[in-house]
Amino acid sequence: MLGSTYESQVCSISRTLEVFGERWTFLILRNALFAESTRFADFHRSLGIATNVLASRLEHLVEAGVMERVMKNSGEGEKYRLTARGRDLTPALIALTEWGDRWAAPNGVPILYRHGREEHPVRMQLVCDICGPLDASADVEALPGPGMPQNMAAGVLERHRLRHAAQPITR
Amino acid sequence: MLGSTYESQVCSISRTLEVFGERWTFLILRNALFAESTRFADFHRSLGIATNVLASRLEHLVEAGVMERVMKNSGEGEKYRLTARGRDLTPALIALTEWGDRWAAPNGVPILYRHGREEHPVRMQLVCDICGPLDASADVEALPGPGMPQNMAAGVLERHRLRHAAQPITR
Repeated sequence: MLGSTYESQVCSISRTLEVFGERWTFLILRNALFAESTRFADFHRSLGIATNVLASRLEHLVEAGVMERVMKNSGEGEKYRLTARGRDLTPALIALTEWGDRWAAPNGVPILYRHGREEHPVRMQLVCDICGPLDASADVEALPGPGMPQNMAAGVLERHRLRHAAQPITR
Repeated sequence: MLGSTYESQVCSISRTLEVFGERWTFLILRNALFAESTRFADFHRSLGIATNVLASRLEHLVEAGVMERVMKNSGEGEKYRLTARGRDLTPALIALTEWGDRWAAPNGVPILYRHGREEHPVRMQLVCDICGPLDASADVEALPGPGMPQNMAAGVLERHRLRHAAQPITR
């Protein structure tokens, strides 16, 4: 069983949510990644978020190393620019979008993700290194990696053993 | 510019976050998907979350059609089981994990995602239908889809036009 100590220490989902786990934060990053928002006023206008909340979220993202403040020519004021760490959230945001596209877009898909001048369509694909592309609802298990403490790993492995002992081989 | 009306109406990330946009909700789903948690007591023990908060989050997930309550044999009490809509969040959770693995796992990757008895490694891959696999930090644009109202689409397309007018062709 993944205990609450585990939460704070060694789960990459938890750690990701420590940085991004708030709705406005995701939407700020979405607009920075895909709508080229860079200025406080851009985010404020497009999100309709209170200025004190927006200031606090941007500050959090700068502290987390996901955005950086850049001073432009004196008249222009400061900009918020994504760092490599921030740009690398692209896949997770696309995967979240795709869930919404499949389950919560009754009037059609609102956004199409494209790359390059030719506007080729891009998407996130669950891939097995041996079997190739997998269905989004494929049966995936979480096994202990090198960063999981031994005492927690034992419980996860026992659950894994029981699960497979209960299933007949079907192929 | 994506206005605040747009937020509530037609963005699939916003709609996804309306269902999942709260940290505990993601962690409940993580444990349901990957740690086989099904009972209230399982989630309570593994997450260390207050019972009233847990009850409210589970209720929200049932209302959103992501989990369903299943009554088992009288002695066993009720279980919470993921629906197809819930299982389909697997790719987004793996993508969030992978960001954490790359940027917030100083002691090594805590979890390895595997599928099947052979425990083949699985991962999320950003894919272009024409170019094939892309780097996670690839330059991706959001263009209007069929579900975006015309008046909003015009602004997005104008931004797109300006962006490409400013870039020389490099290949």
